[in-house]
Amino acid sequence: MTAIGVDRAAARTPITARPRAPRVVRVALAGCGTVGASLVGLIQRQRGLFETRHGVRFELVSVLVRDPEKERGVAVSRQLFTTSVDEFLSVDVDVVVEAIGGFDPAERVVRGAIAAGRHVVTANKALIATHGPELQRLADAQQGALQFEAAVGGGVPVVRTLRSELGGHGVRTITGILNGTTNFLLTALADGVRYADALVDAQARGFAEADPSRDLQGLDAADKIRILAWLAWGVDPAAQEVLVEPLPSDPEPLARQAKRRGGVLKYLAGAVRSDDGRVRAWVRPVIIPTDHPFASVRDEENAVHIDSDSLGVLRLQGRGAGGNATASAVLGDLIEVARGLRYGEI
Amino acid sequence: MTAIGVDRAAARTPITARPRAPRVVRVALAGCGTVGASLVGLIQRQRGLFETRHGVRFELVSVLVRDPEKERGVAVSRQLFTTSVDEFLSVDVDVVVEAIGGFDPAERVVRGAIAAGRHVVTANKALIATHGPELQRLADAQQGALQFEAAVGGGVPVVRTLRSELGGHGVRTITGILNGTTNFLLTALADGVRYADALVDAQARGFAEADPSRDLQGLDAADKIRILAWLAWGVDPAAQEVLVEPLPSDPEPLARQAKRRGGVLKYLAGAVRSDDGRVRAWVRPVIIPTDHPFASVRDEENAVHIDSDSLGVLRLQGRGAGGNATASAVLGDLIEVARGLRYGEI
Repeated sequence: MTAIGVDRAAARTPITARPRAPRVVRVALAGCGTVGASLVGLIQRQRGLFETRHGVRFELVSVLVRDPEKERGVAVSRQLFTTSVDEFLSVDVDVVVEAIGGFDPAERVVRGAIAAGRHVVTANKALIATHGPELQRLADAQQGALQFEAAVGGGVPVVRTLRSELGGHGVRTITGILNGTTNFLLTALADGVRYADALVDAQARGFAEADPSRDLQGLDAADKIRILAWLAWGVDPAAQEVLVEPLPSDPEPLARQAKRRGGVLKYLAGAVRSDDGRVRAWVRPVIIPTDHPFASVRDEENAVHIDSDSLGVLRLQGRGAGGNATASAVLGDLIEVARGLRYGEI
Repeated sequence: MTAIGVDRAAARTPITARPRAPRVVRVALAGCGTVGASLVGLIQRQRGLFETRHGVRFELVSVLVRDPEKERGVAVSRQLFTTSVDEFLSVDVDVVVEAIGGFDPAERVVRGAIAAGRHVVTANKALIATHGPELQRLADAQQGALQFEAAVGGGVPVVRTLRSELGGHGVRTITGILNGTTNFLLTALADGVRYADALVDAQARGFAEADPSRDLQGLDAADKIRILAWLAWGVDPAAQEVLVEPLPSDPEPLARQAKRRGGVLKYLAGAVRSDDGRVRAWVRPVIIPTDHPFASVRDEENAVHIDSDSLGVLRLQGRGAGGNATASAVLGDLIEVARGLRYGEI
């Protein structure tokens, strides 16, 4: 054996496995409301776990907020706060997390972060449903990750599953309960709670927005089924028509009717690709039998059933709304990006 | 604006998104039995999809087999076949897929591939349950990916979910139907089929091995729950005790007893961490009520319920056995590695 050249036997000798120092991943967080604050809490509480299990230390270096004086319920140094999108984007970080929602300034943050070569994690369903394919191409061109598990299904890993596990498959249909707010309300009605009381309760628990009309009118679920149709079949979500039937302004009579028929009222979303390649998507209230798997999806839970050629029906069900569920999905994306960063620079 | 120096406004101008040429990912496949042949079929059928959706072209460059003359039912050029592990490992590839199972030569293939700096995807539950943490450290040290979604749950994405989504969480309990073969047999018994006939049927469909004793004695499920306990809590799977109660050699009387009680017989696996940090794991036949979610897990399906601090109960259910389900999981891992490769060299 000489010092020069490759000795093949030696090259196959097991290398000694030593734990490496944790990779520091610098995170900038846009938005510190319910989801953002939950994420900060999760990262702070599980610090040790990330280092031992994933070899990663997340370091929060900038937080974009509208009001730096507002109480957030988490221990974030005020020095990290900025109200300027430009200042926020100029900080050198590995990953930008967008947890503002809506379009402005969320879209500026995401586009700016991608253009600056950052990896991006977003929980923004409206933005992805409108500009997802374009943002993905921009991120690809910059060799950056664009992750948005939290945009659909809260803590239910449906985006990741459609992207990898089902990424090479003939998906036939997708059906789901994709809006936690309306499912919480309909569960309460099925349990005999009055609609007005259920709505107040949902808002108090942080599932329903102050203005829940996007949920009740099916627009939130429509955005989510658009995103899933994009992932399953590559259709442009912004151009995908969704037949939306809103919940009745008072759904109590329909819920009572469901009960009389021995069923239960659920607000479902679905998409199917027909043989001609056309994708049909819909959101509507449906009375389902009590022994249907969706009947057991209670409160703020979400569920998705994906029927594909090779896998048959895959069912995913779990907590779909609330800060922790969404923050968990964001954190999963962060861990995935961080795992990639450890394999050199993704 | 000058040609030198960074113009910040220009840096933020949206870059033009052009599709890049597909990244060729060279794959070496060890084992071309049920899973390996299904994988080759999936890759060949979905070639166009990978390019348009993921920007990736998988190229099969070497296949390790025991018998190069055997009919595989897929169109693989015989020139790719090799029966020599050394020759197989000497081919320059991006990813090595190990679909042999068991320890020899699978372990030599996986260790050799990691040492040679390849990314590795394996479906091998016995190998991961025995050497998973060590192999992971070796892969980390080489900055290589080690993916093993197919080792647990077939097409049910439980490994990916525990690694990312639940990677930062206090998992409390894991319960599941982790062996598709025994679930297929018990479903048949519940439907009134005789045990001997059900066993022949399971073997004919490729769910049960010629010698199904590892399934019937709970050893397969024990390996899988060990792997999940490692992912959830970091315990060494090889050192983790699992209390295993085999299925009775004739489970018909127990299945009939379940029916008389208005329940159904299922073969469950579980793990729980108590407050003192100790993990208890078990595999045993259980009579469950017919309205329990596990009662609807039929035939070769698998299901896993994961209860965690932040997410509550997450339920995953889908096809757990058979070549296509396992090959789908392998393919998901391949797509994940390929996505990483596109972001530079992971």
